[in-house]
Amino acid sequence: MSEFFTVQTPAAAREKLGSLFAPAVKREQIPTSEAVGRVLTESPVSPQDLPDFVRSTVDGFAVQAADTYGATPGLPAFLPLIGEVPMGTEASLSLGMGEAALVHTGGMIPDGADAVVMVENTQQVDQSSIEILKPVAEGENAIQVGEDIRSGTAILPAGHRLRPQDIGGLLALGIVTVEVAVPPTVAIISTGDEVVPPDQPTKPGQVRDINSYTLAALVERAGGRPLLMGIIADQLEALLTAARHAQQNADIVVISAGSSVSYRDMTSEVIVQLGAPGVLVHGLSVRPGKPTIVALCDGVPVIGLPGNPVSAMVIFDLVVMPLIEQFLGASTAAKTRVQARLARNIASVTGREDFVQVQLEERDGQTWAVPVFGKSNLIYTLVNADGVIHVPLDKGGLYEGEWVTVTLHE
Amino acid sequence: MSEFFTVQTPAAAREKLGSLFAPAVKREQIPTSEAVGRVLTESPVSPQDLPDFVRSTVDGFAVQAADTYGATPGLPAFLPLIGEVPMGTEASLSLGMGEAALVHTGGMIPDGADAVVMVENTQQVDQSSIEILKPVAEGENAIQVGEDIRSGTAILPAGHRLRPQDIGGLLALGIVTVEVAVPPTVAIISTGDEVVPPDQPTKPGQVRDINSYTLAALVERAGGRPLLMGIIADQLEALLTAARHAQQNADIVVISAGSSVSYRDMTSEVIVQLGAPGVLVHGLSVRPGKPTIVALCDGVPVIGLPGNPVSAMVIFDLVVMPLIEQFLGASTAAKTRVQARLARNIASVTGREDFVQVQLEERDGQTWAVPVFGKSNLIYTLVNADGVIHVPLDKGGLYEGEWVTVTLHE
Repeated sequence: MSEFFTVQTPAAAREKLGSLFAPAVKREQIPTSEAVGRVLTESPVSPQDLPDFVRSTVDGFAVQAADTYGATPGLPAFLPLIGEVPMGTEASLSLGMGEAALVHTGGMIPDGADAVVMVENTQQVDQSSIEILKPVAEGENAIQVGEDIRSGTAILPAGHRLRPQDIGGLLALGIVTVEVAVPPTVAIISTGDEVVPPDQPTKPGQVRDINSYTLAALVERAGGRPLLMGIIADQLEALLTAARHAQQNADIVVISAGSSVSYRDMTSEVIVQLGAPGVLVHGLSVRPGKPTIVALCDGVPVIGLPGNPVSAMVIFDLVVMPLIEQFLGASTAAKTRVQARLARNIASVTGREDFVQVQLEERDGQTWAVPVFGKSNLIYTLVNADGVIHVPLDKGGLYEGEWVTVTLHE
Repeated sequence: MSEFFTVQTPAAAREKLGSLFAPAVKREQIPTSEAVGRVLTESPVSPQDLPDFVRSTVDGFAVQAADTYGATPGLPAFLPLIGEVPMGTEASLSLGMGEAALVHTGGMIPDGADAVVMVENTQQVDQSSIEILKPVAEGENAIQVGEDIRSGTAILPAGHRLRPQDIGGLLALGIVTVEVAVPPTVAIISTGDEVVPPDQPTKPGQVRDINSYTLAALVERAGGRPLLMGIIADQLEALLTAARHAQQNADIVVISAGSSVSYRDMTSEVIVQLGAPGVLVHGLSVRPGKPTIVALCDGVPVIGLPGNPVSAMVIFDLVVMPLIEQFLGASTAAKTRVQARLARNIASVTGREDFVQVQLEERDGQTWAVPVFGKSNLIYTLVNADGVIHVPLDKGGLYEGEWVTVTLHE
């Protein structure tokens, strides 16, 4: 029953893997309208000024600002009305000094005009003339050409995860397809003699598979495509066959094994047979999550996750999510991080990173992080948590009232 | 060119609609494994204790704690080894005083044992006996029956939006289907003579449709199903036909019109013909977003959104998203809210709610909200923003350094 952990920090483990493996970001062109949540692999450049004509921001009258200077309700500026610019059309008229033209919100301002007087600050005299009751400055109530974005501007950086408004920004410029990263496939193997599928009754000593489905959902949230391999019998040959199949069909292989030594040993044995260089890190200096394996086999990262659900989620965030982000070339994290104040002291030890599940509470307009008690083996510790905080390697703990970063479980 | 706004606060508008309309939450049963992001319509109750047997949290030896008291490396407790509990099986053996049995992490602890000694704190003497080097307390290294969750406990409240770990929590209990809300269908009509589809070149005076796709993505994020009706020509009959079709096929109708008075008047005219009671609110006391229409026509909420993209998104969050949440019976907001400190003064006026787009910056472990300058007509004001803050009705502004709540654009 030998076990020699050469325990490493998560950062050192990621670095070790990173020094041997840099995934190529695969690219594909997809319709912009379907690209929410996807990661840009190039920085699209604006092909035009937006707007490409001077637009009014109000309903009112296009004028030359100088003609309105000094206008008041008592002493209005009288201007002849030379016409209207209908919405969606090019202004065919051209405005001279001392003239006004009817324009609409979002419509084009005619040549010669340099400002718009809001209709509320005018009075119609008759069909062909108006009075201006309040002066406007040059450029007032107008959006200039390129004021939204200029031709040739980089719109969004490569690595950006597209949000709803980004789709609008791209489509406004006529960019109807975008180049985005192909989501990496993440194979998930569950193993353990005690593990049965969720739809089956359990006998004493058995538990249902939790990790397959939780991990699959986390993979999707991170921008990957989960490939569920099912529960594999706890025999070397069966596990090796499944792992080989996973290695051939996925970009990342995750083996969620039981936490006992025999499982960990078997996961190592399987990994040895999947190809060089094999196991890079066996054991992380984190709690929970120590019994983690980080391996690279024939160009495919293979991660052995601890069996219990809290550890599995902590290590997913530390090791698997950054890998998915690398495959996507993503510069923004998939999970939201928020600042909060710690509601009570947390003890830790230096030389180990602790991850503590917390609930968030609002008190007096500030967010407080309240640690959730519960063993790391308990799925309901996670169900009751809103997020997780991190006690760094070099700290013996965190103090009540301290500011901490909470990574949200969403 | 008459226009009489009876301006209301967003809260008053929601209340007015709410007093006349309460959507029935439609329910459906779906597989738990596919329910991430969906909203529970009932509170599932745990059908069993979890775990339903006493589990070991370590690899080691099940014992009676009393037999280990006082054990030290110098004076170990000697115990005969009566067998092993293999993973995934019921412990067939029963442990007596002065006996030990090999158990594995996650495995069952046999009858008669009340604690587990970690293998690291033992020494194997021979095949049939061990020495205990460190005492354990009663219950140590064991998860008791029901310690994760007890039979009969409400697992999650109705209205909860399911996260990855919730799926794990439900499946752990064998709950393989859940009752969730059917997403409401939100029809989106774009109109405006100046609006052309994104894949078409624009002539002077024309702009591409931004709102249809941004709104569709926002509807999906909020948990609804968008139904894009396309760009409808700016003629009463065409708009009425499209609106009637939308009303018959959707739970909510959103009309994204231009911002000019003629569009607003036409939207009102169309709404009048869609059924009673018709327009409830015409104009909200918010900036941006004043030219909003809230209507109820023959039991279907119809929302006239301002045409410019920033206003449209602000009003979506204030009016449409809460409606979608009502249809889902959701108790948790679809958008994440975080606390931040305001990076500079913001002026407002009392009697109006202001919504200001902000970028988030980390400084010294705190999050700061930096206002994004840009007119509300500019889509790139939104593209450059991480979220939005709210200046309440009764405030003349917000001060630099003040804590504010940022609703994230994600």
